[in-house]
Amino acid sequence: MRQAVTKQRHNKSPTMNRITGSIGIVDTTFARVDMGTMAENTIRREAPKVRIVRYTVPGIKDLPVAAKKLIEEHHCDIVLALGHVGGAAIDSKCAHEASMGIIQAQLMTNHHILGVMVFEAEASTPKQLSATMKDRTVKHARNAIAMLQGKDALRERAGTGRRQGAPDAGPI
Amino acid sequence: MRQAVTKQRHNKSPTMNRITGSIGIVDTTFARVDMGTMAENTIRREAPKVRIVRYTVPGIKDLPVAAKKLIEEHHCDIVLALGHVGGAAIDSKCAHEASMGIIQAQLMTNHHILGVMVFEAEASTPKQLSATMKDRTVKHARNAIAMLQGKDALRERAGTGRRQGAPDAGPI
Amino acid sequence: MRQAVTKQRHNKSPTMNRITGSIGIVDTTFARVDMGTMAENTIRREAPKVRIVRYTVPGIKDLPVAAKKLIEEHHCDIVLALGHVGGAAIDSKCAHEASMGIIQAQLMTNHHILGVMVFEAEASTPKQLSATMKDRTVKHARNAIAMLQGKDALRERAGTGRRQGAPDAGPI
Amino acid sequence: MRQAVTKQRHNKSPTMNRITGSIGIVDTTFARVDMGTMAENTIRREAPKVRIVRYTVPGIKDLPVAAKKLIEEHHCDIVLALGHVGGAAIDSKCAHEASMGIIQAQLMTNHHILGVMVFEAEASTPKQLSATMKDRTVKHARNAIAMLQGKDALRERAGTGRRQGAPDAGPI
Amino acid sequence: MRQAVTKQRHNKSPTMNRITGSIGIVDTTFARVDMGTMAENTIRREAPKVRIVRYTVPGIKDLPVAAKKLIEEHHCDIVLALGHVGGAAIDSKCAHEASMGIIQAQLMTNHHILGVMVFEAEASTPKQLSATMKDRTVKHARNAIAMLQGKDALRERAGTGRRQGAPDAGPI
Repeated sequence: MRQAVTKQRHNKSPTMNRITGSIGIVDTTFARVDMGTMAENTIRREAPKVRIVRYTVPGIKDLPVAAKKLIEEHHCDIVLALGHVGGAAIDSKCAHEASMGIIQAQLMTNHHILGVMVFEAEASTPKQLSATMKDRTVKHARNAIAMLQGKDALRERAGTGRRQGAPDAGPI
Repeated sequence: MRQAVTKQRHNKSPTMNRITGSIGIVDTTFARVDMGTMAENTIRREAPKVRIVRYTVPGIKDLPVAAKKLIEEHHCDIVLALGHVGGAAIDSKCAHEASMGIIQAQLMTNHHILGVMVFEAEASTPKQLSATMKDRTVKHARNAIAMLQGKDALRERAGTGRRQGAPDAGPI
Repeated sequence: MRQAVTKQRHNKSPTMNRITGSIGIVDTTFARVDMGTMAENTIRREAPKVRIVRYTVPGIKDLPVAAKKLIEEHHCDIVLALGHVGGAAIDSKCAHEASMGIIQAQLMTNHHILGVMVFEAEASTPKQLSATMKDRTVKHARNAIAMLQGKDALRERAGTGRRQGAPDAGPI
Repeated sequence: MRQAVTKQRHNKSPTMNRITGSIGIVDTTFARVDMGTMAENTIRREAPKVRIVRYTVPGIKDLPVAAKKLIEEHHCDIVLALGHVGGAAIDSKCAHEASMGIIQAQLMTNHHILGVMVFEAEASTPKQLSATMKDRTVKHARNAIAMLQGKDALRERAGTGRRQGAPDAGPI
Repeated sequence: MRQAVTKQRHNKSPTMNRITGSIGIVDTTFARVDMGTMAENTIRREAPKVRIVRYTVPGIKDLPVAAKKLIEEHHCDIVLALGHVGGAAIDSKCAHEASMGIIQAQLMTNHHILGVMVFEAEASTPKQLSATMKDRTVKHARNAIAMLQGKDALRERAGTGRRQGAPDAGPI
């Protein structure tokens, strides 16, 4: 993974160097991996002119209002809402509630909030879980950077089976 | 399918030629089929005077706010929200969350957003999945065109068992 | 059923003849029975002074915003939202989403929207399904007429075990 | 149960005699027990100066907007939303939808609406169901009376394991 | 547990002594443990300059509006919403509804409301349940105190696997 990231750094397009705007990052104390710093590092490296605003809350159900405050009180253009979902049934229910709130916060603000949730059930070892978190966080940080450029920035990838936290499925 | 579409082109009614208004199309990079272009082609062919506005987001949970922005910031009259729902349990939950958000976005704007979701579980092969996506997308694009003409445009089809993504069930 | 309806026509109370106001009816092209016309006929017959506004949408998830538009843009006092729910698991989920939206639309407008949903699973034959749809639609159309007269119109029936789409359960 | 109620009447505290304000009561024609009158009788007997406003709707999904109208159009301070939940799976889903709407109506008005739902599955005989309804309705009517006095009125009972529709569980 | 709390008292940092602002506490009469007083004691001991406002409601579904009223009518900066969730399936559904409402209340006010829900199913004895309640309530009271200082107060704990009601999981 580290190698891929390094490679990415060298491939950084001149376009991304010029992107401006601000991205909020909200993460949790519940998570067992520092997803917030992963996202921050990706943005600093690949779009150095983008302003970053951090926010840390206890758990995933606290993400929606924090994301909304980043938009309304800290003037972020787009927010990454990072969460680690525990392995119990109640944790999945919490993730559902958080996701509903994140959608609602977007509708109230007309700004995107990319929910980046990683479920413990997705991995069988802590190492695998951590790798999934990194892949999903880094790719969604890149999505956020792209989306700062407007509604057509992801257009060429439409319908191409992109995945975050796993290899791309590709088009049929 | 291609044959049917060709036939449709030749049967295009003079009425549809004159329909004006604007339809937003929001699709995803997650989808493995280019549903957005399917919708766009249908509208261009069958209602050439309709303005089309495209928007691409990462996944289905990003559809609601994008659809709302198409209505409020890009002045679309109606939006097609196109999504491919993965085969895991979590994907179905995401589809539910996205649908709730799409309904909410409609209530906040008083505009229709036609959710066009295709579930992997609906098909047993990629080819079948792709065909279902085309049928559902094309038929809902036609619904969107019709609905530009107001609340009575679909009236003659009320209670007649129409289906998108499958053959019509027909009236009882 | 037809006989019962005929009988009802002759029993129409003078009170109902004088009720004014407007009832919106939104139905779908998905439904396999023309529930909208059933509702319209009931209202025309039993409360001829009531104004009726029709609206047809593709499926049940399109009902909430259509009902809201009938209230806000077409000035209906109360709306009947008529839907046929398919037999698959996804259809039940759609019905749940539609119902949540209908409740939300009511809260946003302070007007009643009577959800009239019939599930395929409620009947074992098409004929039975059709009969259930007629009974539920006609009875809820009568509820709508009554509710035009205000919050106390159904008071004498409170706690008496009324059912729509089935015989009344009656009081305990 | 009747005996307990009689006893309560004689124990009515002088404080409750002086409570003013208004309580809305919304009930349904679906219910098989007249919960509305149970609530009304409790309030008349125990807090005779409280104004009562009644509202009857067809079923539990109609409760949220009726409760909101009682607050906003009939100026009630607090509302009791009384519902009998049928025994089928769909009825439980309706109860969930109604409860979500009741919570939303409270958030939109900043007034309490006490949801008093009784599930058929809670009792094995009609008589038992009726007794559960009475106990839950009477106790929540008393909660409503207490809450007219403000946010601290229930304070001394905090964490004491109170139950409505069943004997109190008591503190651990 | 008492010992730990005592120790905490002696370790109270000078910073916490100076924190100002106000924390609302809403609890229920349903709970079998006095969670509200646990939270109040923690705040009084560890952040004595913080203003505390209490509110008691019947059950967990009454928490959302009470929390919103604490913010909007009693000017609290942050709220602790304390609930004991019963062991039946319906109780879990109520907890889900309450959590959805708590998220919505936060989005409507742009203030944090920390939901502190303890499920009977989490413990096998009343004593264990009580200990879980204390641990979760005390730790979230500390979270609330920290969050009075702004969005970066929990930053150093981001991604470190903190838990409330159980020992910390720690970072991977």
